[in-house]
Amino acid sequence: MERSKARKLAEELVNRMTVEERAGQLRFDAPAIERLGIPAYNWWNEGLHGLARGGTATSFPQAIGLAAMFDPELLERIAEAISTETRAKYNALSSEEDRDIYHGLTLWSPNINIFRDPRWGRGQETYGEDPFLTSVLGTAFVQGLQGEGNTLKTAACAKHFAVHSGPEALRHSFDAQASLKDMEETYLPAFRTLVEEAGVETVMGAYNRTNGEPCCASDFLMEKLRGEWGFEGHFVSDCWAIRDFHENHHITEGPVDSVTKALKAGCDLNCGCTYEHVMHAFELGRISEEDITRSCVRLFTTRFLLGTLGEEGSEYDSIPYSVIECPKHLELSHKAALEACVLLKNDGLLPLDPGSCGTIGVIGPNSNSRASLIGNYHGTASRYTTVLEGIQDMVEGKCRVLYSEGCALGKDRVEPLAQAGDRLAEAAVTARNSDTVILVLGLDETLEGEEGDTGNSYYSGDKEDLLLPKSQRLLLNRVLAEGKPTVIILMAGSSIDPDGAQDRANALLLSWYPGAYGGKAVAEILFGKASPSGKLPVTFYHNSALSEMPDFTDYSLNNRTYRYYSGSPLYPFGYGLTYGNCCVEAVSGGRNSVQVVAVNKGDMDTEDVLELYLHDEGSELAPPNPVLCGFCRVKLAAGQKRTFEIKIDPNAFTVVTEEGKRIPGNGPWTLYAGFGGPDLRTRELTGNGSASLYIAEEK
Amino acid sequence: MERSKARKLAEELVNRMTVEERAGQLRFDAPAIERLGIPAYNWWNEGLHGLARGGTATSFPQAIGLAAMFDPELLERIAEAISTETRAKYNALSSEEDRDIYHGLTLWSPNINIFRDPRWGRGQETYGEDPFLTSVLGTAFVQGLQGEGNTLKTAACAKHFAVHSGPEALRHSFDAQASLKDMEETYLPAFRTLVEEAGVETVMGAYNRTNGEPCCASDFLMEKLRGEWGFEGHFVSDCWAIRDFHENHHITEGPVDSVTKALKAGCDLNCGCTYEHVMHAFELGRISEEDITRSCVRLFTTRFLLGTLGEEGSEYDSIPYSVIECPKHLELSHKAALEACVLLKNDGLLPLDPGSCGTIGVIGPNSNSRASLIGNYHGTASRYTTVLEGIQDMVEGKCRVLYSEGCALGKDRVEPLAQAGDRLAEAAVTARNSDTVILVLGLDETLEGEEGDTGNSYYSGDKEDLLLPKSQRLLLNRVLAEGKPTVIILMAGSSIDPDGAQDRANALLLSWYPGAYGGKAVAEILFGKASPSGKLPVTFYHNSALSEMPDFTDYSLNNRTYRYYSGSPLYPFGYGLTYGNCCVEAVSGGRNSVQVVAVNKGDMDTEDVLELYLHDEGSELAPPNPVLCGFCRVKLAAGQKRTFEIKIDPNAFTVVTEEGKRIPGNGPWTLYAGFGGPDLRTRELTGNGSASLYIAEEK
Repeated sequence: MERSKARKLAEELVNRMTVEERAGQLRFDAPAIERLGIPAYNWWNEGLHGLARGGTATSFPQAIGLAAMFDPELLERIAEAISTETRAKYNALSSEEDRDIYHGLTLWSPNINIFRDPRWGRGQETYGEDPFLTSVLGTAFVQGLQGEGNTLKTAACAKHFAVHSGPEALRHSFDAQASLKDMEETYLPAFRTLVEEAGVETVMGAYNRTNGEPCCASDFLMEKLRGEWGFEGHFVSDCWAIRDFHENHHITEGPVDSVTKALKAGCDLNCGCTYEHVMHAFELGRISEEDITRSCVRLFTTRFLLGTLGEEGSEYDSIPYSVIECPKHLELSHKAALEACVLLKNDGLLPLDPGSCGTIGVIGPNSNSRASLIGNYHGTASRYTTVLEGIQDMVEGKCRVLYSEGCALGKDRVEPLAQAGDRLAEAAVTARNSDTVILVLGLDETLEGEEGDTGNSYYSGDKEDLLLPKSQRLLLNRVLAEGKPTVIILMAGSSIDPDGAQDRANALLLSWYPGAYGGKAVAEILFGKASPSGKLPVTFYHNSALSEMPDFTDYSLNNRTYRYYSGSPLYPFGYGLTYGNCCVEAVSGGRNSVQVVAVNKGDMDTEDVLELYLHDEGSELAPPNPVLCGFCRVKLAAGQKRTFEIKIDPNAFTVVTEEGKRIPGNGPWTLYAGFGGPDLRTRELTGNGSASLYIAEEK
Repeated sequence: MERSKARKLAEELVNRMTVEERAGQLRFDAPAIERLGIPAYNWWNEGLHGLARGGTATSFPQAIGLAAMFDPELLERIAEAISTETRAKYNALSSEEDRDIYHGLTLWSPNINIFRDPRWGRGQETYGEDPFLTSVLGTAFVQGLQGEGNTLKTAACAKHFAVHSGPEALRHSFDAQASLKDMEETYLPAFRTLVEEAGVETVMGAYNRTNGEPCCASDFLMEKLRGEWGFEGHFVSDCWAIRDFHENHHITEGPVDSVTKALKAGCDLNCGCTYEHVMHAFELGRISEEDITRSCVRLFTTRFLLGTLGEEGSEYDSIPYSVIECPKHLELSHKAALEACVLLKNDGLLPLDPGSCGTIGVIGPNSNSRASLIGNYHGTASRYTTVLEGIQDMVEGKCRVLYSEGCALGKDRVEPLAQAGDRLAEAAVTARNSDTVILVLGLDETLEGEEGDTGNSYYSGDKEDLLLPKSQRLLLNRVLAEGKPTVIILMAGSSIDPDGAQDRANALLLSWYPGAYGGKAVAEILFGKASPSGKLPVTFYHNSALSEMPDFTDYSLNNRTYRYYSGSPLYPFGYGLTYGNCCVEAVSGGRNSVQVVAVNKGDMDTEDVLELYLHDEGSELAPPNPVLCGFCRVKLAAGQKRTFEIKIDPNAFTVVTEEGKRIPGNGPWTLYAGFGGPDLRTRELTGNGSASLYIAEEK
């Protein structure tokens, strides 16, 4: 359905409502208007990496892991699956008259904020630290959710608009200061792309203020969104963010004032309850009927676009309940978990041979943890395979598997009455009785997550530093001291510094929060049933780098993220090994696209990610380091050579002025093409095949 | 080692200690005495159904489920396995100088209290409501733990001595009033048997007072224990129970007074910290050196019996770490889970045929819950199979399995922001899309457990009634309304009244908290790979029966437990169906033993439990109902007939006077022999094969 038609239908319907009825529809839990045949509708639903909080659904890797796939095609298919399941659940439950929260068709995903600081607890929800990657992946996700049908399959939401990345503890009162250059260069591109190119139906405002204005009522941001970019969908506040105007930001006098400010700025829908004061504001003459009607029409336009009102219905009304966790969707989750895992180190121990690795000791608090599979904003899978279970299943009948929890995830002891380190001796004995040790460490949403959302140890949800919790550092040392061949599995949603353990262990595999199939995928990689191929969508810093960076509250990009960081990272953005040995032999082409000749010189088939980085050598306004301008997930059999055509992001040839104006760069440009790392001058560090250089023509 | 020799060694060693050193050894966390070569020793360890709280160990069904096996031989082998693993862990960890809590050789198990009231949260830890069954099973467990070697493999503990069964909320200040007749007839027999026949090394005193005296310093109880029964082991207080003397019972003035009372009464070891005041009491002249020495010698006698002191060591010192969760032990757990499950109803739906049951809907909050596998006082298994996982594995490639959590276990909604019943519609839709429904309901240790030990909803740990939580009752009704063939699986540690749902469902299977293999065992039973054979070790009452019973705080046996209950139970003590049809054809013999001719008239092989009940028809002092006096787990192939010889408990021919004196009964006695139920006059209710009668000779 054309938006213009939906809008017309919306206008007609809204026209038949009283002002009070219209005002009521601006709440996330919009009531029924029975006389007009309008059912109740709860706008709040989540689908970050699978339909979330709404019961059984296919569980995919957490968003940061989905980003590590560097695979927009697969991501789009995942989003399609999420959308299909959301429709199926909506079809089934609305027919039961269950129209509650988390059962609707408006998914408040994806989170396209830039993972600016490695401590941010919600960074796991994002596609990492690069605006181009975030734009490409966000577009794929939105297109997958919304579909290409006559009606929207579901409505996607670009959040949190804009300049939002912690600290969590301060989010309700914080004023993020971002330069116009950083906005245009880093914080806004993905939002712009999702509006202009992906046609995202919803944009959610952030909790914080940005440059003094609350993001849910920011003239600057709204002018970008609806003015410059032509956004025609609806705008929703983050949950209880409008209450923050008066309670925490102290920029309004009270609820009526906050409602007035938000509605007049164009915040159509309130997640929270402050819009219960809309009629009060109207009666006081603070807002007009037109203010209310405008937002109401936008919201009903979305409902008509979804085909949930009117006689025509939606082509998705017939999606049956049986699609939920259907084999096709489960296989997507499995494939995603395989693609998401990033191999950070391998001295040759991997892949393991179950026939020759003897007794396997699986040790660590995330070994048998379901929580570490799922991250935050998750649904309920009907089967979870933990890393321990995946290994057990893989070697059944071939090896004995010993297990020790080793320590509590974040506390100093497992048993409250015991002394600190009450599982360390067991862990050491387990390692001693094993021929190969798999140490499964990391975090879960109790240690990194959202403010106020979980029982996380720091409450705010952010990490204090990049180290593993102390309990796990003690475990690492105790187990590594046994001197057995050791693989470390890291399960986390952000940059972790193992503090030297990576040098003492034989291999280091990062699984992120890999979803319900995570343990199966990790085991398949450990035992060579699949080659790892994920790449870091964030820089893995040394913990000491925190002291070189701006403060957590400082939104300057100076010395943050791979484009601006001047130090030597622990593992760079884009990094990730395979069991193959993919190299670039030649690159040619021009500004629009390049042809890259790549070969797998190894003896194992693998997928890998061909990455292009561009550096403007002649513009002082350009980021100091080469920036990602194109990438392509490729499959290369052992010995196979292929040529790949890759498009280059045209933005890469532009630069941004201090006033936030995007202008052509000066050049000349150096284009780097290779596998496994952004700084292709440090190939000897990444060790993942050779790279080639190419000087682009001057404009 | 003979106790006399161990005692002599203990006396010699204690003789070399200062009084202060001796006093220090009466604490559960006894410090090292380096000058005498005595290592630190923490007496507190647990092994109720697997080594508990001490890391990885084989997880067996909760004790109430172990009782439902009616299989002392298997229980003894399980206890052997627990003991072997405890030794292995002790050997490994003490060599690492880890001598902390839960790593020692003194297991504070079994719990042989009588499950007097069906609301008691810790009833799950017991062997049920019958003193004879408890005595037989407790003996098997203690013998399995302690072994028959030259040294004790581990030391078992009979607890909580005596007359202890809730309410949990009152336990620190409660005074249980028990008649002398009830003590001799019900509360004390198992303790006496474990001392006199099983040679239990440790007895633990209860928190409460009994008839005015605190159980950890009761002259009446101590006279029974050490006087009448000749107990020579050591006596330990329940944890922080001696502090209760002054803080909660208010029967002493303060710590010194409490220490004096306990030590003089013969409480050798203090779990808690009140015995830190022993030296203070000594210095004040309240206790003598002899008081301290006596207890210290008893404790070191146990340590010498365990072979942990002295040059000889123990034959168990060489048990390797590899026995922990070894295949033999895991198979015991699997077998126990199969034997523990009690089939309460089956209209013929079971066993299911995976080839013809179509799509299976698994619904309910315990479907995929690990917590519901383990009950309280549990260790850490390296693999848990939930009911959902067991079913998935069983039908893989044959049936589709749909899953819905259905509701939160004890709360009214799964998602905090949703409306109550937020998974009910999903559950209904799941049922509608299924051909067969498996509803997995019940409790876990958050809803029934120990006071102060868990985050249980009622905090006290006791149940308020016998109904399922309201959320689950709503789920039951919603799902049953779909009218699909439905099996209810109950996972709980106590009597549950499904409130009529059992009549509407096709089958009802009680799994208790079945241990790490629980889901596998349940699936094997559901799909006919095994025939269920467990029997109720407690009466399953109608919830309305609570109003007919004495108050929870009333320890009179009047109208409590199957021996005294005058009402009609929901399912009687001893009840449990199989897929066979085992019947008794004849019984003959005398007072010592009987010969029972039994036949399996069904067409499936099965195990079953042959039960003997005796009723003294001529003694007014006898319990009103027939009492269990013998039993035998038997295996009968389809069509097979066998004769079994079963011994009769000689106590069954005695009665107890109001003064607590056990005297010969008058007779005549009626002996009932049959399968599946105590009240063999209601065979038509139990429907599990016929029974025979036998009039015993008069004395």
